[in-house]
Amino acid sequence: MNAPTALPLIFHREVPTALIDALKSRFGERCSTALVVREQHGRDESAFAAVPPPSAVVFAESTQDVAEVVSLASAYSVPVIPFGVGSSLEGHLLAVQGGISLDVSRMNQVLSINAEDLTVTVQPGVTRKQLNEAVKFTGLFFPVDPGADATLGGMSATRASGTNAVRYGTMRENVLALEVVTASGDIIRTGTRAKKSAAGYDLTRLMVGSEGTLGVITEVTVKLYPLPEATSAAICSFPSIEAAVRSTIQIIQMGIPIARVELIDANTVRMVNAYAKLGLREEPMLLMEFHGSPTGVKEQAESVQEIASEFGGNSFEWATTPEERTRLWTARHNAYFAAIQSRPGCRSISTDTCVPISRLADCLLDSIVEADASGIPYFLVGHVGDGNFHFGYLIDPDNRAERETAEQLNHALVSRALSMEGTCTGEHGIGLHKMDFLVTETGDGAVNMMRALKRALDPKNIMNPGKIFTL
Amino acid sequence: MNAPTALPLIFHREVPTALIDALKSRFGERCSTALVVREQHGRDESAFAAVPPPSAVVFAESTQDVAEVVSLASAYSVPVIPFGVGSSLEGHLLAVQGGISLDVSRMNQVLSINAEDLTVTVQPGVTRKQLNEAVKFTGLFFPVDPGADATLGGMSATRASGTNAVRYGTMRENVLALEVVTASGDIIRTGTRAKKSAAGYDLTRLMVGSEGTLGVITEVTVKLYPLPEATSAAICSFPSIEAAVRSTIQIIQMGIPIARVELIDANTVRMVNAYAKLGLREEPMLLMEFHGSPTGVKEQAESVQEIASEFGGNSFEWATTPEERTRLWTARHNAYFAAIQSRPGCRSISTDTCVPISRLADCLLDSIVEADASGIPYFLVGHVGDGNFHFGYLIDPDNRAERETAEQLNHALVSRALSMEGTCTGEHGIGLHKMDFLVTETGDGAVNMMRALKRALDPKNIMNPGKIFTL
Repeated sequence: MNAPTALPLIFHREVPTALIDALKSRFGERCSTALVVREQHGRDESAFAAVPPPSAVVFAESTQDVAEVVSLASAYSVPVIPFGVGSSLEGHLLAVQGGISLDVSRMNQVLSINAEDLTVTVQPGVTRKQLNEAVKFTGLFFPVDPGADATLGGMSATRASGTNAVRYGTMRENVLALEVVTASGDIIRTGTRAKKSAAGYDLTRLMVGSEGTLGVITEVTVKLYPLPEATSAAICSFPSIEAAVRSTIQIIQMGIPIARVELIDANTVRMVNAYAKLGLREEPMLLMEFHGSPTGVKEQAESVQEIASEFGGNSFEWATTPEERTRLWTARHNAYFAAIQSRPGCRSISTDTCVPISRLADCLLDSIVEADASGIPYFLVGHVGDGNFHFGYLIDPDNRAERETAEQLNHALVSRALSMEGTCTGEHGIGLHKMDFLVTETGDGAVNMMRALKRALDPKNIMNPGKIFTL
Repeated sequence: MNAPTALPLIFHREVPTALIDALKSRFGERCSTALVVREQHGRDESAFAAVPPPSAVVFAESTQDVAEVVSLASAYSVPVIPFGVGSSLEGHLLAVQGGISLDVSRMNQVLSINAEDLTVTVQPGVTRKQLNEAVKFTGLFFPVDPGADATLGGMSATRASGTNAVRYGTMRENVLALEVVTASGDIIRTGTRAKKSAAGYDLTRLMVGSEGTLGVITEVTVKLYPLPEATSAAICSFPSIEAAVRSTIQIIQMGIPIARVELIDANTVRMVNAYAKLGLREEPMLLMEFHGSPTGVKEQAESVQEIASEFGGNSFEWATTPEERTRLWTARHNAYFAAIQSRPGCRSISTDTCVPISRLADCLLDSIVEADASGIPYFLVGHVGDGNFHFGYLIDPDNRAERETAEQLNHALVSRALSMEGTCTGEHGIGLHKMDFLVTETGDGAVNMMRALKRALDPKNIMNPGKIFTL
């Protein structure tokens, strides 16, 4: 396993002037070649060094627009990189082989709310907050919450999850059907609104997590859930990370249907306090949320308090009103920005390992020892109920030694997670950063199967090429 | 949309003597060419007319055995049909293009129980009852229950679900990882034991539901769940099917986490009473099960009773001990056999539509009117909490007119379900029976994408060819 290189392999495929002319002629001002627009579309939230931006950005407003862009790009064998809000963490949006950025953020209509079926169909540019605003009146909600206000298209493409996944699942479990523009510009549907189906290959889940490499997602149908009758949130501080993690393991093993259980280490609490003046105890903490009937929530909370107190957890702080809950969750949602601000000019290299729950403490504690010894500042948060956590190594992007140290830490962490039958990425995807890890994790045979699928569906290799694996 | 033909298209590909000789030389008595063994492996529970059986049956005892059989078959371009216990309902096991049956039922070891992670890894020949026996001591259970005591390999291959799916999901949600022998005889792993992952294409879910057409499943890792602290089961009779179904719709829309909610129509209750002397009221009924804490179960049951009584549901019969629950569930589990015995010599043509929950009553009631008008006897059961139900048309297999009438009824039902944004198959798969329906449901574009995937992974078309779609 080689540590990923700081600069991805770049080879620019030619983008003929004739293609740009054709796009401009068809889309007018909605096809931009302005440098500032191209640069904005040629990066994401990852710490990769910049690569030359795409040659043009097309702002699609309909599935038909997407199909036309892809058809034109296919005619010229030019890469197409779908773009939502740019919140990817793994370099998915970088034009490493050149090409066209296809911005779907204007495709932001909620197409049909089927409250009586607990489903909703949206265009790919709808963000998760926008979706929850739109369905609020129905008494339903969409639970997948990756932190960023990402688009449903992007969340599908990266198989996103987040804080509620421990109870409600990830995009894998929550996408019912997609409309997809294929690499040849055809429009297909991958499923129906039925809750389950055994009708042929599961194209929906083949597309979910394919990171834009198999087609462009143009519609997403997802499940909704009734807003719980009662919701309660709590913060609990622990004497050590180990105590917090061992409490989590026991909560999960006992089958308590906790809706959220998030770890924040003491150092990250300090950063958040500095950023948002929250005045939280600067100790490792779990942020938890319970959903259910009033008595159900009470039962869950009592069981969890009992477990936590066995491990020295103390000072439960409860929140039952939406306002109080928002305050508690501010700590979690601000962690990334607080961390970035704690070291001006830094970039974060985020890890994303996920291990079977029984191995969580071992995986996490050894990695903390290594991170502390390295001297690199970091933040640490985790969807620990799923065995998933993130270090964010806060590096000076111009300091080669720091970058290498961070990569070595990540490398050691991934190796440890894989030895524990875990994965290198719970929710961020492979992108450019983890291609070597993917081979180590799944073996050449499985990656070669992925390559065969890619070649079959995208023979010209125009859909976001150079991501997940090299061909 | 054409009604499927009674006899699938048959063209036998040659099975060279040299291949049979090689298999006999390698596997000795574990390669059988006895007619009785071949015939037993050339049929399933579907009502298809028999086709000539496979040329040989190989009993594999290890992944290595499977890889060797597939490699040999590949060398001779001969079809391989994986076989578990033969409980398929859609003709999956019929050797429509000839070939070799690969029986994995002797690969029946539970390989590792990871109770602390709520996972278990088994060989493909392990059946669901065997699995639940094996994990009983851990206080955990595996919920997917398709009725038949199917193998985990077969259940994965057909994306099975059943009575518990309304709460615990289907094989789609419960398989974490697979080991698969590919069409070239390579052995790959499709995932890890991590609860979630964003590591590349979701090969696990591509294989789940691929009906043996993309490879042979040789290991299955699935999720387990803590046995609920309290379990309660109930039967409730209703004045009409509509009342039972409208109650179900409301239970689901309110988000009550019911573990099972099964419909049995009055006619089927009569058949079950005759078969098993249960003395149940011969009215439409719902069989329900609640899992949770004692108070949670009580709350769920109270809410459901309130809903049911609004629709005229009466005479709740409760069962809380395992023995009483088993008696109640006998009605559901015996429905198929009771129905078959109600008309000696008959075969059942099973429907499997699944629709969004709000359309369930419309879809079901109109289809009952049609079935009653046809004069064909039938049974009717349903996993109605998922919008999924099964008519079993009980035909005389030698009566061409009856078969055609049953196919017409199914055809009308599927058309209705598709017009309601549902699917032709919730859990049985496409097999031979629903290939035309698949095209209507998903469109040529999606089926052509499936064909492209098949050609990419199985260029010689040797893995269970002629199922799901024709190439």
